[in-house]
Amino acid sequence: MYHVLSAHQFDRQQLDELFKTAEIMEFNARKGGLNLLGGKIMAALFFEPSTRTRFSFESAMMRLGGTVISTENAAQFSSAIKGETLEDSIRVISSYADVIVMRHNEVGAAMRAAKVATVPVINAGDGAGEHPTQSLLDLYTIQKELGRVDGLKVAMVGDLTYGRTVHSLAYLLAKYQGVKLYFVAPESCPIPEKVKAFLDEKGVEYFEETDLEKVAEIVDVLYMTRIQKERFPTQSDYERAAGVYKIDPPLLDRMKSNSIILHPLPRAGEIAPEVDDDPRAAYFRQAKNGVYIRMALLAYCLEEGMVSRDTTALESLLK
Amino acid sequence: MYHVLSAHQFDRQQLDELFKTAEIMEFNARKGGLNLLGGKIMAALFFEPSTRTRFSFESAMMRLGGTVISTENAAQFSSAIKGETLEDSIRVISSYADVIVMRHNEVGAAMRAAKVATVPVINAGDGAGEHPTQSLLDLYTIQKELGRVDGLKVAMVGDLTYGRTVHSLAYLLAKYQGVKLYFVAPESCPIPEKVKAFLDEKGVEYFEETDLEKVAEIVDVLYMTRIQKERFPTQSDYERAAGVYKIDPPLLDRMKSNSIILHPLPRAGEIAPEVDDDPRAAYFRQAKNGVYIRMALLAYCLEEGMVSRDTTALESLLK
Amino acid sequence: MYHVLSAHQFDRQQLDELFKTAEIMEFNARKGGLNLLGGKIMAALFFEPSTRTRFSFESAMMRLGGTVISTENAAQFSSAIKGETLEDSIRVISSYADVIVMRHNEVGAAMRAAKVATVPVINAGDGAGEHPTQSLLDLYTIQKELGRVDGLKVAMVGDLTYGRTVHSLAYLLAKYQGVKLYFVAPESCPIPEKVKAFLDEKGVEYFEETDLEKVAEIVDVLYMTRIQKERFPTQSDYERAAGVYKIDPPLLDRMKSNSIILHPLPRAGEIAPEVDDDPRAAYFRQAKNGVYIRMALLAYCLEEGMVSRDTTALESLLK
Repeated sequence: MYHVLSAHQFDRQQLDELFKTAEIMEFNARKGGLNLLGGKIMAALFFEPSTRTRFSFESAMMRLGGTVISTENAAQFSSAIKGETLEDSIRVISSYADVIVMRHNEVGAAMRAAKVATVPVINAGDGAGEHPTQSLLDLYTIQKELGRVDGLKVAMVGDLTYGRTVHSLAYLLAKYQGVKLYFVAPESCPIPEKVKAFLDEKGVEYFEETDLEKVAEIVDVLYMTRIQKERFPTQSDYERAAGVYKIDPPLLDRMKSNSIILHPLPRAGEIAPEVDDDPRAAYFRQAKNGVYIRMALLAYCLEEGMVSRDTTALESLLK
Repeated sequence: MYHVLSAHQFDRQQLDELFKTAEIMEFNARKGGLNLLGGKIMAALFFEPSTRTRFSFESAMMRLGGTVISTENAAQFSSAIKGETLEDSIRVISSYADVIVMRHNEVGAAMRAAKVATVPVINAGDGAGEHPTQSLLDLYTIQKELGRVDGLKVAMVGDLTYGRTVHSLAYLLAKYQGVKLYFVAPESCPIPEKVKAFLDEKGVEYFEETDLEKVAEIVDVLYMTRIQKERFPTQSDYERAAGVYKIDPPLLDRMKSNSIILHPLPRAGEIAPEVDDDPRAAYFRQAKNGVYIRMALLAYCLEEGMVSRDTTALESLLK
Repeated sequence: MYHVLSAHQFDRQQLDELFKTAEIMEFNARKGGLNLLGGKIMAALFFEPSTRTRFSFESAMMRLGGTVISTENAAQFSSAIKGETLEDSIRVISSYADVIVMRHNEVGAAMRAAKVATVPVINAGDGAGEHPTQSLLDLYTIQKELGRVDGLKVAMVGDLTYGRTVHSLAYLLAKYQGVKLYFVAPESCPIPEKVKAFLDEKGVEYFEETDLEKVAEIVDVLYMTRIQKERFPTQSDYERAAGVYKIDPPLLDRMKSNSIILHPLPRAGEIAPEVDDDPRAAYFRQAKNGVYIRMALLAYCLEEGMVSRDTTALESLLK
C-alpha cells in the first residue's frame, strides 16, 4: 500500500522526481487536464473543516480525470454517540474509494488510518502533527521560483512554536546542501528545541533573530506565517504577538530583487495587501502549486510509484 | 475575464441570444448532455447555504460535462478566527477552479470577487443585492411559456419591498416594449421608490394595486412571492402580511386561460397545492428552466462568449 | 417511475436477479468501472447526516460513470423558516437530477417523495421505517458468503426492538425456504410482536433466546447489531442492555467453521476487534457489498428494469 504520511518519508532524489512530475502535471492541467485517474474515486475525509485544502485535493483529483466523495463532517463517523473507532471508519471507506485523503485533529491519526486501510492514505493534516503536502508544495514553490534550493537563505517568520508547516519545511530543507535558516518569532512563540536539535544533528546552520528588517535584507525566501489567535490565552497576549512582524512596502524595499515571499495562507494582517502586486509576492502562485503537487502525489499513490512504503517501514523511518 | 454579476448587464439582444442558447441547452440535456465543458471545474462557493440554487448550478455544470468542487460553509474561509478577506479567498480559489459560482450575504460581494478573480465569477445571490440568474430564468420562462415578452401584463405579488427577485425582474422587463407591471403588496411591504423611479425613467407603465382578484383577471403573468417571516419584527406583523394574498382555485378561475403563474420558490402558503395541476401553474417548469439558463451562462463564461466584460466596464454599466 | 422504497417490494425471483446483477457490478467495478450511467446525475438528498450510506451510494453512482449532487443538510429545504413541503422539494430536485437517493427522519417520507417525483426515488432510510438497500446488501452478503439462503439458521442479536435493519432482514429472509431465525436480545429490547406475527403468517420458524453462547454454536449467520444509546431513557439503562451480548474470541471458538458474522456497522463494543481477522468476520466485506448492490439498484432505476412499479401498486404491495 502506498501512503503519504509525512514530509520525512521523501529523500532528496524522490523530492526531485516529485517536483519534475508536478511540472508535468502543471503542463497537462493547463492543456485541459489528463485522464490518468479516470474511473478512480478519491474520498476526502475531513474530521475538521478545511475547505481550502479540500478544494485543492479535489481539484487535483478532477484535473486527473478522477471523481470525489467528500465530507467535512467526518467526525460523526466516530462520534461519541455512535462510538466507532477511526480504524473501523477507514476500513469501511476503503471499500468506497481508491484513495483516502484525510484531515484529522489528532496527531498520528494518519498513521493509524494507513495501518488498516486497504487503499492509499494521504495525510492532509493531523492536528499538531504533520501536513506533508503543504510543506512539499512550499518547497516546490521555492525550487520553481528560484531554480534551486541548495545554498538558499530562508527566513521563517511568525508563530514558530505552533506552526507545523514551518517545522515540516525546516525538516525538508535539511535534506538540501548549504541551506541557512533564520527564525524570526515573537518572544512568546519561538522555534521549538526539538526542531533545533534536529537541525543541529543534520548540521544545518540556523539563526534565531528578532530583527525582521535586518533578516529581510539578506534572505532569498521570506516564509511568513499567521499568528493564530486560538493559540493564545488572552486577546492581549495575541495582539502583542500578532503586531510584531509585518511585511509592508518599506520592508519590501529592503528585500533582494530576486527574493520571494511565501505564506501558507490564510493571512491575517501580517502581509499588507499593497505587497500583493510585487513580483516577489509568491503566495498565490504557491497556492496554485499545491494543485500540481497533489496531482503528482495522487498519481503516485494510485499508480504504485515512488511513494510506496509499507507502514512498518514508514513508521521506523519516521521515528 | 467574463463575469455574470447583475441582470442589468444584459441588453435586449444579449437576452435574446441567451434564451436561444438555453433552448439549445435544453435540447442537448434531454438527449443526455453535452461534453462542452469536459475537464473544467466549477467552484460552488456558498457563504450561506442555498441547496436549491447550488444544486441547479451543479446540475448545469454536470450536464455540460464539467465537474464541481463545492461548499455551503464558505464562511470559514474568511471567518473572524482566521480573518481572511473575501479577496484572498477568491484569489486562492481561482487556482482551483475554472469558474466560481458564489453566494454571499453581503451586497456587492460578487463585484468584489470579480475584481480579483483570475477566472469568471457568477453571482448566485449577494445578500439584498442581486440574484441575476434567478431573474434571467424568470424572464426566460415567461418568453418560453408565452412566446414573447413585449406587450405583456405582469403582476408581481407579495413582499415587494425585500424581494430582490421582483426588483431584478422588473428591471429586466423594462428592456422590453409595451410591458405593463402591476404591483400587489401588503401595506407593510410596498414596491420601493427606487424601482418606481427606474420604471418612470424608462417609461414603463406600472400600477400599484391592492385587489388581487381584479388584477388576476387581466394579467398574462402572475409572479407570486413568499412573504419572508424573517423580515418582520413580530410574528403578528408577519401573519398580517402573509395571509393577505393567496392563489387558490377560485382565484385561478378568474385568470385568463393563456396566463401563467410563476414563483421563485420555495413557497409557503401563498399558492394552494390544488393549483399545481393546472397547466397555468408554471413554477416547477420555471425551476427546471434554471438549469438550462445556467448551462447557457456557464458555457458563455467558459467559452469566452457574450457575457465578457471587464469589471470596470461592468461597474460603470451597473451604476 | 421506478422506485426502491422497501425491501418488501422484491419477490424471490427479483432478489435472485438483483444478486446476479450485483455480482456483475462487482466484476466490472474491479476492472475499473462501467460507463453505464455516463451523463446521469444522482441527487443525494440527506435530511439527516449519514456519511457512510451517502458515500456508498455516491461511490456506486461514480463506479457506473455517473455524477452526484449532494447534501447532508437537506432539512433547510423544508425548514420551519422557509416552510417548504417535502413534496415541493422533491418536485424541484426532480428537475436537477435523474435519480434521487433520499434519507429522511420520518417514516413514510420515501413514499411521499416517490408520489410526486418525476424521477426514480431510492429510500436510503426513512426514520424508524425502512432502509431497504441495507437489508438487501445484508441478504446479498449471506448468499455470497454461504452460497445460499434457503435452509440457513440466522441469529439476530442486540437491540431487536428499534433495529430497523433487523426487521427488514427478517422480512426478506421469510421469502426463502426453511430459514430458521434466532432472536437474542436484552430484556429491554425484544423483537416486536408485529415481526413475530409476520413470521407466523409466513410459516417461518423462529426462536427467542437469551443464551448467545448456545445459539452461536448452531447458527450459520450471526447478525450482530449495536445497542443504540439514544434509544434508552438513562445511561444506566443503556449500559445494562449494552453489556449483555458481545462477540469475543471465546464465543468465536464456539461458532461453526463455515458460519459468518455480520454487522450493519458502526459497531460500538459488541464485537471485539480481535475477531476482525477471523475469516468468519464478514462485516467489512458486507460494507463493500453495499456498493455493488447499490450499483445494481441504480442501474435498474435508470435503465427501466426490474424495480419498476407505480407508487399505487407499490403502496398496496407494502400494506
